[in-house]
Amino acid sequence: MSTSLEHIRHTLAHLLAAAVLELYPDAKPTIGPAIDNGFYYDFEFPLGADGKSTSPVQTDLKDIEKRMRKLLPSWKEMAGQEVTPDQARDAFKGNPYKTELIEEIHGKGENITLYTAGHFTDLCRGGHAENPAKEIPADSFKLSRIAGAYWRGDEKNAMLTRIYGLAFESREALDAYLTQLAEAEKRDHKKLGKELGLFLFSDLVGSGLPLWTPKGTIIRELLNDYVWEMRRAKGYQKVTIPHITKKDLYETSGHWAKFKDELFKIETREKHVFAMKPMNCPHHTQIYANELRSYRDMPQRYAETTMVYRDEQSGELSGLSRVRAITQDDAHVFCRKSQIKNEIFAIWDIIDSFYKTFGFKDLRIRISRHDPAKFENYIGTPEVWKTAEDQLVSLVKERGISDVIDGLGEAAMYGPKIDFIAKDSIGRTLQVATIQLDFNMPERFDLACMNEKGEKERIVMIHCAIMGSIERFMATLIEHTGGLFPFWLSPVQVQVIPVAEAYADAAQKVHESLRAANIRSEIDLSNDSFGKKIRGAKTAHTPYFIILGEKDVAAGKVTLESRDQGQIGQVSIEGVLKKFQEEVKERK
Amino acid sequence: MSTSLEHIRHTLAHLLAAAVLELYPDAKPTIGPAIDNGFYYDFEFPLGADGKSTSPVQTDLKDIEKRMRKLLPSWKEMAGQEVTPDQARDAFKGNPYKTELIEEIHGKGENITLYTAGHFTDLCRGGHAENPAKEIPADSFKLSRIAGAYWRGDEKNAMLTRIYGLAFESREALDAYLTQLAEAEKRDHKKLGKELGLFLFSDLVGSGLPLWTPKGTIIRELLNDYVWEMRRAKGYQKVTIPHITKKDLYETSGHWAKFKDELFKIETREKHVFAMKPMNCPHHTQIYANELRSYRDMPQRYAETTMVYRDEQSGELSGLSRVRAITQDDAHVFCRKSQIKNEIFAIWDIIDSFYKTFGFKDLRIRISRHDPAKFENYIGTPEVWKTAEDQLVSLVKERGISDVIDGLGEAAMYGPKIDFIAKDSIGRTLQVATIQLDFNMPERFDLACMNEKGEKERIVMIHCAIMGSIERFMATLIEHTGGLFPFWLSPVQVQVIPVAEAYADAAQKVHESLRAANIRSEIDLSNDSFGKKIRGAKTAHTPYFIILGEKDVAAGKVTLESRDQGQIGQVSIEGVLKKFQEEVKERK
Repeated sequence: MSTSLEHIRHTLAHLLAAAVLELYPDAKPTIGPAIDNGFYYDFEFPLGADGKSTSPVQTDLKDIEKRMRKLLPSWKEMAGQEVTPDQARDAFKGNPYKTELIEEIHGKGENITLYTAGHFTDLCRGGHAENPAKEIPADSFKLSRIAGAYWRGDEKNAMLTRIYGLAFESREALDAYLTQLAEAEKRDHKKLGKELGLFLFSDLVGSGLPLWTPKGTIIRELLNDYVWEMRRAKGYQKVTIPHITKKDLYETSGHWAKFKDELFKIETREKHVFAMKPMNCPHHTQIYANELRSYRDMPQRYAETTMVYRDEQSGELSGLSRVRAITQDDAHVFCRKSQIKNEIFAIWDIIDSFYKTFGFKDLRIRISRHDPAKFENYIGTPEVWKTAEDQLVSLVKERGISDVIDGLGEAAMYGPKIDFIAKDSIGRTLQVATIQLDFNMPERFDLACMNEKGEKERIVMIHCAIMGSIERFMATLIEHTGGLFPFWLSPVQVQVIPVAEAYADAAQKVHESLRAANIRSEIDLSNDSFGKKIRGAKTAHTPYFIILGEKDVAAGKVTLESRDQGQIGQVSIEGVLKKFQEEVKERK
Repeated sequence: MSTSLEHIRHTLAHLLAAAVLELYPDAKPTIGPAIDNGFYYDFEFPLGADGKSTSPVQTDLKDIEKRMRKLLPSWKEMAGQEVTPDQARDAFKGNPYKTELIEEIHGKGENITLYTAGHFTDLCRGGHAENPAKEIPADSFKLSRIAGAYWRGDEKNAMLTRIYGLAFESREALDAYLTQLAEAEKRDHKKLGKELGLFLFSDLVGSGLPLWTPKGTIIRELLNDYVWEMRRAKGYQKVTIPHITKKDLYETSGHWAKFKDELFKIETREKHVFAMKPMNCPHHTQIYANELRSYRDMPQRYAETTMVYRDEQSGELSGLSRVRAITQDDAHVFCRKSQIKNEIFAIWDIIDSFYKTFGFKDLRIRISRHDPAKFENYIGTPEVWKTAEDQLVSLVKERGISDVIDGLGEAAMYGPKIDFIAKDSIGRTLQVATIQLDFNMPERFDLACMNEKGEKERIVMIHCAIMGSIERFMATLIEHTGGLFPFWLSPVQVQVIPVAEAYADAAQKVHESLRAANIRSEIDLSNDSFGKKIRGAKTAHTPYFIILGEKDVAAGKVTLESRDQGQIGQVSIEGVLKKFQEEVKERK
């Protein structure tokens, strides 16, 4: 968010506190920062004479909001003033929260400042709108919800009441956000995934461990085949590794030390320590290292779609976005330094094609670098990191990209990355693919090839996943399409519906022709009414219906209707097959 | 082995002991049973005056064997005699091993018998050739090797010397066995797999955890695609499950109690107990149970090729035959009782087709039943087991199979099986596919469908794997073919070799046409001599070579040579492509 928007949000937190104190004079204000989409403020509301909480509830937000709007015109400035600790203590006498903060600031030897607007003064570091009445449109914010929150986030402390507000530059921006929010809720992949019967969670198997139905598996496989088709054309080869290893592999790779908490660890009956793989690169190095490689064999490009595992905490799990078993469409290129550019550009081409197919155009680029201040989080030397990062910067430049996001501290443990950032159909940005350049694993596993001079030459590794993980990409795709998958990807592509039982045989024949042509057709021969059948197919977002009635059978044709384009009309079955096969081929 | 062959082998163990005692009078005989391919006898050989062992070594076996042959004609009978404990103790005075056995037999209140042939008497329960001289051909046995063995197999006991012998009905049978043994050694999948570069083991990853190279992965995928092609035609659908689960799933399925030692167990950071899956059926039940199923949805047929895991002991691991991570081409059919026959016969058809493709004809059938004496090893009630076993017996009969092996105690934990037994190209029998009928899992997971009357109807599960495991099938296939994979399955199908550099461009064009036609072609443009290139392709067992020389380029053709049929001659490139594509299609 822009700095000025942050200042406006922060100012609105003050305004919220002022409004609350006018309506609830016994409330004790605590803290109120700006956040990603607005602001909040935490209050202590005392118990009333009847022993019940005096805290406002959701329905009271309207009144508080009204009071904020009433106060706003009188907030012509936010005046800051430095005070002594005693002055501050005096100003917030009877408010233990503010007092605690004052002592803390004083203890650190920092200055204490108070800010006043209208009749309201708050302990604050500053960063506000200069003239709130002028700068803040009265219709650009909205109180959104009330929640409980512990003082300073610690469950041992008192439970406070948090009031959240949304705030944007203008009413239009606020409305757009509210629309996006409502749209996102409708498209939530957890909800749609269940409705469309794509995946499920089982209480017996556990959270964070999705199971995929036949329909969900069809989409997974089609996506994976698409990536593989493009990789194959670029000379990739599939390999296969087990999902576990002795810990020795990760001691060599460095994952054991850096990744330890998130590893699923296994003690065998013989008391050896194994781990489930959190990444595939260390295993793949072992396939590379199995033979002495000549420069003529380079690059070696290994692809494998396989699950990796992370011991995530239950509270952090969320649908397909954060799971404990993740299917990566992973690949590792083992190449000479002189081959880096070609290999990275080949991957880049695949990423561009893949995301364009789904309407993610103009991906933005982030160069994710290491954070020198936290060098203990990485393996390798500063020199090696500089070489790798410089190379990525120059490749991005050579590719003609000028609008680059700087990802300080976003690198992988073993090397910097080019991350690709997409915008989905409702305007949300998300990181999708990634290409990682790694000079460190080859060092640790002593990976080399014999060069033209017969000398051992250190190689480099390039890590890349096109989808990232199938689970996360599926979540993205479900929400991006709202469950209206393109034809080539739909688990059921066509629903064949006879208008009445008399046309069931004709419908069956059409259904079988479609199946024989590898089109995923279903036929509805149930006793349900014609109308109900059509509604069923529409709810399932089936891309096409083929309807067979008297006129169709008489003409030896079918009536075709499209989910996206509506009625198409009477078409020959050959025409339908040709149309469908072309759309599959073009991944429409 | 037949009883009489067992008697002969047992008799030969006596004869071995007699020969050893004549040549090594200080040796103390202990025990000597018949085994699978012959017999052995364990002896204690005292230390000599020089402090060194007097035990014979490998090169002494010839002399012992000669002495056995010399004694054999005088062994006209094996006379048994019951003796008192004292008589027995007296006969084996100074031999603590025999004395220990005598006390043991006496302690159990059993009769003690001695058997004598020629001048040799042994403590023995009987079971011999009646007239060894007549019944045992002198050239039907052979001493094979010497090894150390602890008395009674316990490492706390004295180390004895074990002499092994091979013995068969006739010299021809012995020779056939020796030939098979030599052939098996040449074809050992561990040796060939390494030579052909199909898979590897890494010290860092650990034993029992194979990693598959691009070449090995090509074969795995082709095999798996073949199985899937047939399953798809029978209405199977792919599903996808995670490789771990909370232990709750296995407590419900019964695996936790019965399978516990072999489970890889995981304690998460939140102290929950997870396990890596040793089987896929419990997970698949959760996909079935995710929806209320109507009789119209039945059967549901789920297929998934995925790894399962067993915490095997290091000493039991062997190449691909016994591993810790096993890729099963697994499938589960959820069906009504009335559908069992159709479903089992459909699987049976797939099994027949699959194994016939590799030349495994006339698979023998074993019905693997539970062992009522060890009912604690199974889940379910005796009635349910009887129903399931009776049904398998009647299906096997209906399929017209009369030659059925009875597999008492060979059932799975949850149900009886039809096992398929193949004979490989060097005559060894091995269990391949299996079909399992399971009334128990549906009970435990409460799996049902709504039948025509709107009532909840208990369903059954059929478990089947066509290859069993890809690892074990690969081991079988490598040894069965001796590494000479059929054309459609070869990682490199064609090697293109220009006779000299002048024909490199023409060769490159041919290579590219092959690649474009999805034929796995490789081209050898190295500086090696033509002869060396040909030898290289032959060592790699490449099914075809295409050679390009002056005459070929002039004629616009290629010279084709087959690994199996030798020279084929000059052929047009269109002719080659057509031939190759047909062979792939027919899986030749």
